[in-house]
Amino acid sequence: MALLYKSDPDRGRRWQALFAEHAPDIEFRQWPDIGDPAEIRYLLAWQPPAEIATLLPNLYVLFATSAGIDQFDTSILPEALPVVRMLDPAIEQGMIEYATFATLWLHRHMADYVRQQRQHQWQARMITPAGERRLGILGLGQLGGAIARHLAGYGFQVSGWARTAREIPGVTAYAGVEALDAFLAECDILICVLPLTDATRGVLDRKLFERLPTGASLINMGRGEHLVEADLTAALATGQLCGAVLDVLREEPPAADHPFWQDPRILMTPHVGAMTQPDTAFPVLLENLRRHQRGETMLGCVDRQRGY
Amino acid sequence: MALLYKSDPDRGRRWQALFAEHAPDIEFRQWPDIGDPAEIRYLLAWQPPAEIATLLPNLYVLFATSAGIDQFDTSILPEALPVVRMLDPAIEQGMIEYATFATLWLHRHMADYVRQQRQHQWQARMITPAGERRLGILGLGQLGGAIARHLAGYGFQVSGWARTAREIPGVTAYAGVEALDAFLAECDILICVLPLTDATRGVLDRKLFERLPTGASLINMGRGEHLVEADLTAALATGQLCGAVLDVLREEPPAADHPFWQDPRILMTPHVGAMTQPDTAFPVLLENLRRHQRGETMLGCVDRQRGY
Repeated sequence: MALLYKSDPDRGRRWQALFAEHAPDIEFRQWPDIGDPAEIRYLLAWQPPAEIATLLPNLYVLFATSAGIDQFDTSILPEALPVVRMLDPAIEQGMIEYATFATLWLHRHMADYVRQQRQHQWQARMITPAGERRLGILGLGQLGGAIARHLAGYGFQVSGWARTAREIPGVTAYAGVEALDAFLAECDILICVLPLTDATRGVLDRKLFERLPTGASLINMGRGEHLVEADLTAALATGQLCGAVLDVLREEPPAADHPFWQDPRILMTPHVGAMTQPDTAFPVLLENLRRHQRGETMLGCVDRQRGY
Repeated sequence: MALLYKSDPDRGRRWQALFAEHAPDIEFRQWPDIGDPAEIRYLLAWQPPAEIATLLPNLYVLFATSAGIDQFDTSILPEALPVVRMLDPAIEQGMIEYATFATLWLHRHMADYVRQQRQHQWQARMITPAGERRLGILGLGQLGGAIARHLAGYGFQVSGWARTAREIPGVTAYAGVEALDAFLAECDILICVLPLTDATRGVLDRKLFERLPTGASLINMGRGEHLVEADLTAALATGQLCGAVLDVLREEPPAADHPFWQDPRILMTPHVGAMTQPDTAFPVLLENLRRHQRGETMLGCVDRQRGY
């Protein structure tokens, strides 16, 4: 019985050591050295091999190394193959840190100060008390919910939107398409942590920006394809939006002539919101492997119809 | 009985409205319209008038609008005049926000990403788990203690140093000059929130930087005079320090040819860590006014020997 790892090679060495120490009954193999394919029962991958169905005929489960699985071409996956998302607590921690950083960057006018420093200017802006700043979390799943709870702890007015109803103490929750307008009207800072599906692709567009309060800001830590990039440029030009923090882009890295590189109102980071860390992800994965071996339900199973 | 306000005029109007509504027995006067000086019993000021002793002969108390009082020339103050610091909860909230922002800026390599964006580069750096990042708070008073507690909540390894022993749950506390070396040796990020006194002026100097781990970073949210600015430039040049966030400078604004303006490893903000907000500061001030009227001890009284 073997597990095949196909993701970042550096972290692969750490995964290998963790398996050797804590689960020696499961042989760890690292792509492309797959050995006898018939022995491979589990695949742990950022992106499965294109020929997965023929290459790995005895596969039990596909584990993603990421929280989202939109990078998978699900059409090539055997229909009955369970797909499991990574619920690494380090991802939640990383996303909370990033969301807090980006919120404070916008809340405290840091883009202005970075620009001013370059221009040798020293001009303070008034501080808006946290209790007068309205944050909206678009997507209230495991990550969105954790971010909403955390930011509410700063005294911000936090609301959240999800497809289906959620209850989070201290957070005003909106549910369903019919509640989206009311939610957006209350967001000074909108934080997108939606999963990428056919229903959410391009959701951050001109029509959505127009429903935000004038002068609102955007944080996208979902996927690049959530955002219609030309619509953001237009909304910043008219002043409908006044700033953005983007951790994900449609094309990564963006083209050399992409307008976002030089826009002082946009802070762009190279997809670093969170990274799976073998040390914290391993216990989660091992728990799922043992559950599978005992015939129990695994945690983080993807509904392939829904897309997450 | 009148109170004279001598600070930011815009916020003065809000102070006036709060007195009119909640303490109509105390007449609010705003500098320079002081009326009959003999009637002025309380002074609320960022900087008292130079001629305070002769100008305001019947003054009971000097209230600072700030948390620190190092901007006061105490030699001109009547010896028996009580001096009270501002304990506005908005200052604590502002300082926590700023300290969190600056810590995450350094912890998550944001200076690199801002520089890379300008250079059209897209290069992720590994994330250090919060539990492996050691933060040190220099100064564990009301503000330093609140910052230490807050940042410990992120899972960082937090320690703190103060002149005298403090106990804060989740924070390793060091006390006294003899413990300073042991404290500094454990600080990947050093956050200065000391009061400015003759004992702390210039404390952030070459000798201190050399006792930090190689590649450490500095956040100064105390006062500009805590830092020997040329020593920071030198420590960044050798790599002993790798970055800094400075909210305060020796001269504010710094001279047009100050080297910090153009140093990409330094983020400089125009003294915006926290601002006293009349709405949250008023209840604190009024409580002290009533305590004084009842002959009780006021909160935040300054020990003029100690300087804070």
